[in-house]
Amino acid sequence: MSSVFFCPSTVWPAGEKIGFGYSSVRGWRSTGVGGVASVYLRPIRAKMAADRFRGRSGEFIEENGKCDCSVTERNTLVLSNVGNSTNIAWHECPVGKHERQKLLKQKGCVIWITGLSGSGKSTLACALSRELHMLGYLSYVLDGDNVRHGLNKDLGFKAEDRSENIRRIGEVAKLFADAGIICIASLISPYRVDRDACRAMMPYSTFIEVFMDIPLEICESRDAKGLYKLARSGKIKGFTGIDDPYEPPLESEILLAPIDGVCPSPVSMAKQVISYLDDKGFLEA
Amino acid sequence: MSSVFFCPSTVWPAGEKIGFGYSSVRGWRSTGVGGVASVYLRPIRAKMAADRFRGRSGEFIEENGKCDCSVTERNTLVLSNVGNSTNIAWHECPVGKHERQKLLKQKGCVIWITGLSGSGKSTLACALSRELHMLGYLSYVLDGDNVRHGLNKDLGFKAEDRSENIRRIGEVAKLFADAGIICIASLISPYRVDRDACRAMMPYSTFIEVFMDIPLEICESRDAKGLYKLARSGKIKGFTGIDDPYEPPLESEILLAPIDGVCPSPVSMAKQVISYLDDKGFLEA
Repeated sequence: MSSVFFCPSTVWPAGEKIGFGYSSVRGWRSTGVGGVASVYLRPIRAKMAADRFRGRSGEFIEENGKCDCSVTERNTLVLSNVGNSTNIAWHECPVGKHERQKLLKQKGCVIWITGLSGSGKSTLACALSRELHMLGYLSYVLDGDNVRHGLNKDLGFKAEDRSENIRRIGEVAKLFADAGIICIASLISPYRVDRDACRAMMPYSTFIEVFMDIPLEICESRDAKGLYKLARSGKIKGFTGIDDPYEPPLESEILLAPIDGVCPSPVSMAKQVISYLDDKGFLEA
Repeated sequence: MSSVFFCPSTVWPAGEKIGFGYSSVRGWRSTGVGGVASVYLRPIRAKMAADRFRGRSGEFIEENGKCDCSVTERNTLVLSNVGNSTNIAWHECPVGKHERQKLLKQKGCVIWITGLSGSGKSTLACALSRELHMLGYLSYVLDGDNVRHGLNKDLGFKAEDRSENIRRIGEVAKLFADAGIICIASLISPYRVDRDACRAMMPYSTFIEVFMDIPLEICESRDAKGLYKLARSGKIKGFTGIDDPYEPPLESEILLAPIDGVCPSPVSMAKQVISYLDDKGFLEA
């Protein structure tokens, strides 16, 4: 890697705060297994022009406004130990939660939907993300099962794995809320202590617990995944509601339950949640 | 938990696709340790009105358009086993990556900044997020050190922990890209196999590797965290570049290096990356 190329900084006119010109990017072309990578220079014609950004709500941020990571600014960062991680420093960027929320015209939060398997958590999550999207709000669904396809695929269903599954989803949801997004986490999360630990991770009011208070009989009669049948026949052990407890929230922000045995529609439940978000100011920056 | 309340669905006028009315939310007021939770009903006055949403770019999404999780729609979901997770189903929501990208007028991707400690990864990440924000684009920085304060605080610095640290950040970055966000991951990530594993997680073109090709002498002379000094004196073991190898990328999309020994400014490097994003179509939906 002897020959390198970099676009000289003079390409960017001094004092120009937002602008694009010509630039170059170097890539490495692999010549296959065991081969020597060769270098190519590829010019990129930046087709951006100021009028491309009409209607976008960018805002000027002072250079190094809040940034503590510029090596020219400070010689020593404060290091700390967190858990098993030693000698790590917290970097703060000039663009923070507040700036992202202004851009999105909404406030980041975590809507934590808890309840038995078959209580309609994923259905509510989807309906809520759909209703929010139609109003122009950015949300993202973290579904317990979906996250087990990726981040949490190393975890099983024994007690400590379930706790770790919930902890990680809580931490990821916190990052999404910090990004300014309305994060909808949908997972059984049967134990109070695990949910409360997630609540404790973030500013109190940004954790909105939604309890799907649907009786076991209704959930079992749905059995969308056929899991209750497997649990009743003993083919699955430790199934919430059958041979493992579900601890209902004591202080959930929103409780959704059937009236006279009839479950409300997903859309009406979603609007219930949206009313709450609106009331609490999450639908504006 | 005998008495429950739910806002009847008739509050939402039939056929009204986007609308708000009055709603109620039930919360639980805890009476302290060991106490009995009492129920209170709190009316929420939805102050939303149609004109609140002028200028927002919401779009109509068909109900149950793509949703496969409605229990009234399908009786059985397809279950699978992934890693240690058994009997999990993938839920697809009607609002997907494509819809979120339209809302944000950008495409989600992962900008993976790799390089030695002190090479300026975090500085570039901050400058890039600042430049993007000023143009009205939503980005989010996943800083290796910052994530070790939360999601990865259970991990240390031994080989398998470093791998797991990178795998988790890759998985989280993938979720952010899926959310439509320009996710900027900034971490040493010294081993090629770990970075390539992250690349393999997502659609190829959405993983943009940025190699900070700054010579060790420059990084060590900065030593913003004082870690090189500790590593040289043997107080830290396995430090990248000193007694642990750094494997440079063979196929990085962008390579940033000094010219004639002078490092480019963070802003000029950020604009280099933005030119690439523009060229590849990430700055439009």
